[in-house]
Amino acid sequence: MTNNMAQLYQQVCDHARQTAMIASIESVLGWDDHTYLPAAAGDYRAEQITFLTGQVHQRWVDKAFGDWLDTLAADHLATHPATDTAVVIHRLKRQRDRRIKLPQSLVEELTRTAVLGQLAWQEARAQNDYAKFRPYLQKTITLKKQQAEALGFNDHPYDALLDEFEPEEQTANVGRVLSGLREQLVPLVAAILNSGRQPRMEILKRNFPVEVQKTFGQRAAEAIGYDFKRGRLDVTVHPFCATLGPHDCRITARYDENFFNMAFFAVMHEAGHGIYEQALPADYYGLPLCEAASMGIHESQSRMWENFVGRSRAFWRHYLPVAQAFFPQSLGDVSLEDFYFAINDVRPSLIRVEADEATYNLHILIRFELELAMMQGDVGVDDLPSAWNDKYRQYLGITPPRDAEGVLQDMHWSGGLIGYFPTYALGNLYAAQFFAQARNELGNLDGMFERGEFEPLRLWLREKIHRHGKRFTAAELVEHVTGRPLSYEPLMMHLYDKFRPLYGLD
Amino acid sequence: MTNNMAQLYQQVCDHARQTAMIASIESVLGWDDHTYLPAAAGDYRAEQITFLTGQVHQRWVDKAFGDWLDTLAADHLATHPATDTAVVIHRLKRQRDRRIKLPQSLVEELTRTAVLGQLAWQEARAQNDYAKFRPYLQKTITLKKQQAEALGFNDHPYDALLDEFEPEEQTANVGRVLSGLREQLVPLVAAILNSGRQPRMEILKRNFPVEVQKTFGQRAAEAIGYDFKRGRLDVTVHPFCATLGPHDCRITARYDENFFNMAFFAVMHEAGHGIYEQALPADYYGLPLCEAASMGIHESQSRMWENFVGRSRAFWRHYLPVAQAFFPQSLGDVSLEDFYFAINDVRPSLIRVEADEATYNLHILIRFELELAMMQGDVGVDDLPSAWNDKYRQYLGITPPRDAEGVLQDMHWSGGLIGYFPTYALGNLYAAQFFAQARNELGNLDGMFERGEFEPLRLWLREKIHRHGKRFTAAELVEHVTGRPLSYEPLMMHLYDKFRPLYGLD
Repeated sequence: MTNNMAQLYQQVCDHARQTAMIASIESVLGWDDHTYLPAAAGDYRAEQITFLTGQVHQRWVDKAFGDWLDTLAADHLATHPATDTAVVIHRLKRQRDRRIKLPQSLVEELTRTAVLGQLAWQEARAQNDYAKFRPYLQKTITLKKQQAEALGFNDHPYDALLDEFEPEEQTANVGRVLSGLREQLVPLVAAILNSGRQPRMEILKRNFPVEVQKTFGQRAAEAIGYDFKRGRLDVTVHPFCATLGPHDCRITARYDENFFNMAFFAVMHEAGHGIYEQALPADYYGLPLCEAASMGIHESQSRMWENFVGRSRAFWRHYLPVAQAFFPQSLGDVSLEDFYFAINDVRPSLIRVEADEATYNLHILIRFELELAMMQGDVGVDDLPSAWNDKYRQYLGITPPRDAEGVLQDMHWSGGLIGYFPTYALGNLYAAQFFAQARNELGNLDGMFERGEFEPLRLWLREKIHRHGKRFTAAELVEHVTGRPLSYEPLMMHLYDKFRPLYGLD
Repeated sequence: MTNNMAQLYQQVCDHARQTAMIASIESVLGWDDHTYLPAAAGDYRAEQITFLTGQVHQRWVDKAFGDWLDTLAADHLATHPATDTAVVIHRLKRQRDRRIKLPQSLVEELTRTAVLGQLAWQEARAQNDYAKFRPYLQKTITLKKQQAEALGFNDHPYDALLDEFEPEEQTANVGRVLSGLREQLVPLVAAILNSGRQPRMEILKRNFPVEVQKTFGQRAAEAIGYDFKRGRLDVTVHPFCATLGPHDCRITARYDENFFNMAFFAVMHEAGHGIYEQALPADYYGLPLCEAASMGIHESQSRMWENFVGRSRAFWRHYLPVAQAFFPQSLGDVSLEDFYFAINDVRPSLIRVEADEATYNLHILIRFELELAMMQGDVGVDDLPSAWNDKYRQYLGITPPRDAEGVLQDMHWSGGLIGYFPTYALGNLYAAQFFAQARNELGNLDGMFERGEFEPLRLWLREKIHRHGKRFTAAELVEHVTGRPLSYEPLMMHLYDKFRPLYGLD
């Protein structure tokens, strides 16, 4: 790199870091909005956030910033494709290019439709009246097609939308893997149902005082490596993980005094996200080297700690005695096997966010297939509720009695999120593939968990995944780490290994 | 106003409101910094805040903004001195003029000295080593003299510093009133001491569970009119009130399980600030019409609810039974008279923030007199500790055994705050004068308090003070509301009326 180029690169980094700082301020306001904002303060908070969003956008589309990136890309990417510098230039340019391809009028129309759509959806869901939401969904689909056209794509317009969450991922590839998954998963779930076995669920529905749950959850999050000096755990209606700065990543959970799972697995899940964010190289905060590879990779980390660790027998061999000390009256008489079976109860249900480890993926498949069908025009908004119900019957063997528990249950479409759902299933797939590899390389993970040792796994994840930021795409990363492309087999293997013995299947 | 001028005025208002929005975002970050920020996140938070501070400053000193204000001022102030428009133009221009008079180099030097000074002061106080702080205080005094010169003044350089907190107030006037106060207060405190009477303080030092205190404090704050739909109550080391938007004013308190006063009177105090902020006309948020008149007027509102209401016999005639229901074991056997005497215990002490209603003003007087003396060069930093101790002996009859409990106790000077202390005593003086007037106009306030009725007083304060924002200076406001200029007499009358019977004085 010549001196001139080095200086230009410095300007680009300074610009990007400043933009990230403004975005981080927006994140503080968003976090406060979800946690502690007084009821009457919402309107002004929206104005504050809109103001910052505008500043962030202006800085991304800034002409000089674009020129610097173009110059650097022409000079650098061909000759030094593997350096930090090239990664930063390539990823920033890619993000900027996506931004400038969207006409301002389309962005505004998408935003307006999302705001109105969410209000309409809330009302529609409360009143179980899909017709109230239908016109907004129609408008959203139309706009998302326009967005895909504006962004451009090779094979499928859905590629352009998916790219926002899974950079460079292809719809065809996702479809192939998820179809393979479906073919094995639907029979497994059916076999589980036919087994006639059921765990004693009531042991999880006893009394668990909220304040004690908070302490217990915090202790578990600390144990798996979430750093409270650089984070917090608060209460929100919908759990989330938000990064507010290089050393400030906060998680939330919600609590049900009469259901152990509600908070505990949310804490494990969000702590998994948090551990990833906290392990990104903070010195590069504001640059792609300190950003998660993709939403799917992010979800793989939360799912790994929630399910592959948190719902394992080995984990509870260590933690059930601790939990019994925290909740002596509710868990004192509960055996490890009963507890383990209960937290791994598989039961087709209508609501995605309440689904178990096995059926969850089918909820996602249904949404992914319907999104694709809507984008292709194979399913229109008029037919969507029945198409939804058909798929629930087909994959899960149940039919939603009302649209409120069917097609209206998720907020994603009302907010203009199309292409996001598959990242949830990708997360499970990546998690399984990474976890199998970790077991290959680290040896007896169960033995470690039984002793309460989670650092080996966490450090392995940092080394293999976290520290790279956006250096690799998700597809490259999974290939790098496991030596194989994304596959549904590790996940199915994990589900077979867990559920065949539990349900007495062959 | 011509169309052109009206358009210019609109531009000025838009500019000011946008600046206020950025400042409000800074307030969110500041609030979070004091309440929930993870330990390791302080450095980046400082960067975020510095960035916003810079944006706010740039917008204030913006050349076009200044030109618009000059044009409007020339056109409007002479001809329409009493309109909303004129108030906005005059106050904005005055604030801007103060900003642009300070050279950038001086602002930076003040900021740097404040940061280093605070670190040095923390160490000096912890080690009881005034010498460690002395050079920073010397530097601060030098810079504050430069600041006063840059800002300009008529009579006394201290006027220029005081103006930041009490716009248009004069040092000579404050000095006159505070000297008059001192002449009556010192003998009153001495007489109280000589009375030999003391309340049963142990009743306030029993066990008061923190969670119960929180609920009780929240209920009292609600009762006097602090609106939790537009506010919150959190926990911080130093209680404060912060406004984060037109409908978002938050207060904090700290809790001592074994001392009732610690949290309760902090909640009443901060709720008093909050009630003022919440009653400012929100439609004008971002303009001087939605800003408090002065720090002294602000403090008058907090002191009124804390002391004139919250330490009155009538208030506790209503609230002691409520408090007894909240804290049956600690307060169940306590009589109203014993409780009332205990919360009004007068006792010369070394620490300002722990001082009672009577001696508090003497702590402030000492600081005000020493600030003046330092600015005039009558007391140098080498002589300050002994000058401090002399005054404590003279006014309060006690001598600090160590500088840590003497000249090093407050953070103000280390942070470059000179001219701020008198606003605390002014707050007490204004509170007394307003409260006497409210009693004249509303009649039997005690009767209302005994019935738990605080709305008449709150609405009177809103009508007379809150709704005006910065329309009037503090001096104008007190004259408008009470028909008399600021005087020490109402405060002394209040203190005589309360403490003569309690301590059996003539």
